Amino acid sequence: MFNGISNSIIIRIILTKRGKKLPEVLATISDLDSQVGAIDIVKTEGDTITRDITIETHGEDHLAAIVSALNKLEGVEIKHISDRTFLLHLGGKIEVKSKIPIHTRDDLSMAYTPGVARVCMAIHKDPELARNLTIKHNTVGVVSDGTAVLGLGDIGPLAALPVMEGKAMLMKEFAQIDAFPICLDTKDIEEVIKAVKYIAPNFGAINLEDISAPRCFEIERRLKKELDIPVFHDDQHGTAAVLAAALINALKIVKKKFADIKVVVNGVGAAGTACTFMLLKLGVKNIIGCDRSGALVSSRSDLTGIKREYAERTNPNKESGSIYDVIKGADVFVGLSAPNILKVEDIKKMNKDAIVFAMANPTPEIMPELAAPHVAIIATGRSDYPNQINNLLVFPGLLRGALDCQARDINEEMTLAAAYAVASIVDDASLSPDYIVPSVFNHKVVEAVAAAVIKAARDTGVARK
Amino acid sequence: MFNGISNSIIIRIILTKRGKKLPEVLATISDLDSQVGAIDIVKTEGDTITRDITIETHGEDHLAAIVSALNKLEGVEIKHISDRTFLLHLGGKIEVKSKIPIHTRDDLSMAYTPGVARVCMAIHKDPELARNLTIKHNTVGVVSDGTAVLGLGDIGPLAALPVMEGKAMLMKEFAQIDAFPICLDTKDIEEVIKAVKYIAPNFGAINLEDISAPRCFEIERRLKKELDIPVFHDDQHGTAAVLAAALINALKIVKKKFADIKVVVNGVGAAGTACTFMLLKLGVKNIIGCDRSGALVSSRSDLTGIKREYAERTNPNKESGSIYDVIKGADVFVGLSAPNILKVEDIKKMNKDAIVFAMANPTPEIMPELAAPHVAIIATGRSDYPNQINNLLVFPGLLRGALDCQARDINEEMTLAAAYAVASIVDDASLSPDYIVPSVFNHKVVEAVAAAVIKAARDTGVARK
Repeated sequence: MFNGISNSIIIRIILTKRGKKLPEVLATISDLDSQVGAIDIVKTEGDTITRDITIETHGEDHLAAIVSALNKLEGVEIKHISDRTFLLHLGGKIEVKSKIPIHTRDDLSMAYTPGVARVCMAIHKDPELARNLTIKHNTVGVVSDGTAVLGLGDIGPLAALPVMEGKAMLMKEFAQIDAFPICLDTKDIEEVIKAVKYIAPNFGAINLEDISAPRCFEIERRLKKELDIPVFHDDQHGTAAVLAAALINALKIVKKKFADIKVVVNGVGAAGTACTFMLLKLGVKNIIGCDRSGALVSSRSDLTGIKREYAERTNPNKESGSIYDVIKGADVFVGLSAPNILKVEDIKKMNKDAIVFAMANPTPEIMPELAAPHVAIIATGRSDYPNQINNLLVFPGLLRGALDCQARDINEEMTLAAAYAVASIVDDASLSPDYIVPSVFNHKVVEAVAAAVIKAARDTGVARK
Repeated sequence: MFNGISNSIIIRIILTKRGKKLPEVLATISDLDSQVGAIDIVKTEGDTITRDITIETHGEDHLAAIVSALNKLEGVEIKHISDRTFLLHLGGKIEVKSKIPIHTRDDLSMAYTPGVARVCMAIHKDPELARNLTIKHNTVGVVSDGTAVLGLGDIGPLAALPVMEGKAMLMKEFAQIDAFPICLDTKDIEEVIKAVKYIAPNFGAINLEDISAPRCFEIERRLKKELDIPVFHDDQHGTAAVLAAALINALKIVKKKFADIKVVVNGVGAAGTACTFMLLKLGVKNIIGCDRSGALVSSRSDLTGIKREYAERTNPNKESGSIYDVIKGADVFVGLSAPNILKVEDIKKMNKDAIVFAMANPTPEIMPELAAPHVAIIATGRSDYPNQINNLLVFPGLLRGALDCQARDINEEMTLAAAYAVASIVDDASLSPDYIVPSVFNHKVVEAVAAAVIKAARDTGVARK
């Protein structure tokens, strides 16, 4: 299996005896199960030719094996190896631009001193004017402390920066939002809260990202309470909204109702908890969450904080045991846990027309090819299988809507509205077990989500506009 | 006197009896001493015509008088009034853009997950790689707590935002730096320091801006010590460097030497203090600072902190009294204080070939037309007189240089190098009492300053690269 384009490597190679060595090089690469992409000529000099050969690899070990094999060929010299993903990251992925050129003294005296002073004083007299006269209205802070970056764990704020830049790119490309990464060099909950409050004047909304559980719950709760701009933890509520959208459509296919289904959620961190609370909001009655110690049941004495709340709000039949026990008879499996933890025999214990969301990244709880024969619908977080549960379906439109109506908050109603909007993009005629959510590149999604979110914000009284 | 383009107003006006009313309107505006700019037709309907008339005003009272006079004209209706400076600020002045379009799954998987994970891990293993693979290397945080914004005082972080956006624009337009405004919602010195330290991972340098004295000294000192990126307080060191550049050239004209001159500095806040310390570095021996209580002399018992240090490092002849006393025999007056505090009689007390830097904004300590007959050189902060002492001559090139050599600090040597670089742009043939500093639009300035700063950083061992 290929990791795909993100392990795409360009090998610059010098071949003597031009024209004769290339087939041998390509055969060597091919024999090692690597796929060759573009082949370019960089330059020719006498009898030697320099070429750039783009190949797809399975990872670093695979690349090392290919390089080693090529080095053994006579008349072949590897000049350097470029990684397309690293090349794309060189210098960073976003930039800050002036909207107005500054070519003359007139430009300068309006955009900066002395003209800007009148704008400052207008905002000083009426702070609401900041939403008209500054970047605040369209700017989102993408805040992380680097404690739970992707599946990589606590790698720190500097190493988290490429992810936050990526998020900022996506906000601009998908929803014309100006977003800026704020990677915080503190892990102390109170200090993170303070830092975000201090920088809040610059932003119309805060997107929390990749903050470890359970710290993220307290940080989000406090910031929502103490700030007058929306605070949105995408790992929780973005994931929950996309899962909800997918489940809304999946249940149409299997003709089951929220109130009747049994759902097991494996992994009750930030995403698992938010997904569960969203399912409750959707009307699901029987949800059982599992952590490493098994099913969350209110009789467990080791549960505190949000896990205690979780146990009390779910598992009405007080089922206990491991995920392998409680999965029996489940209609829906929601996995936000670890690779390959489910076997076919586990899937077979589920109810008829089972729905499996195996969202561990990059390797799901069970690979789709294994699960597919035994379930009605399988979805993962991956782009190389159908039904990708990708937060990108929700956060751009949700934040676009929240900014456009100058929302004070992003509440459950708005997130739920986003979920129904995403689901609605797949019309009944197109709906199928392989197509329960739209493509992230479907331009209708952002527009539909933003409109639904604005309506929900107005209906619930959190819209300023 | 006009405040110029920054009070440029567009009046949309509906005229009946088309063609006949315009001369009357223009005469009315002209009679009230306002200058008419562009006159556009918006639309014509039957006998009425809608026009946009751009006028320059002296300020709000003047505009009100014009509007009132126009309202009295028959057949003339004012539809609305737009302020060009406010129009330019609508929606804010900067935006965040993606450098790379995201059109396909391949784009997505390289710029975001899963590809970005390898970039994150590379930085996690070697944090220095963040300077290659993220925005850090070219990104400056423009940090203010809104306590001393322009000459407007403590107007708060939200009202300070248009200035910080303006600064970010100028950094991009003049030096291709990506800068982002960080207006902090705290005035506590320790909290400001902490906030800047927490957000530092995102930035290659910090530009402190519009933070009140003496708080700014402690904030700058601590951040310089505790961060491994350059911290630069432009109000102090930017101003000092431009003043130094101007004085280097001014002394050439009057043929005096740093070691021989007497300098009086009126106003010893952030800028005045930094200018003084820079002059000491340039070799000036006799400097006398004045605050509201008069000359800083080490015998004064009310001086603490940086004012005590100031008194001890300056005023070798222990002169005391007010600015009107100590200005006697001065070769150079440096004003960073209040409008119109000097009279012609004060200027006349100065030494032969006096140099006056009257930098209070927007109204100088003495207007150039009053001072000019009695001094060799007069400079102000204004763009509508010769010799504008504008920080824009220094901070873009200085930060460009610091980023390019990955400086750990911006030290006195680098600031001084920037000053000499600015001065050098005015060649001896062009040098004259009306032309001691180059235009801010002279493109040679940024390049020369950056190169000089990089050399100074390398010479003093603070350059990483």
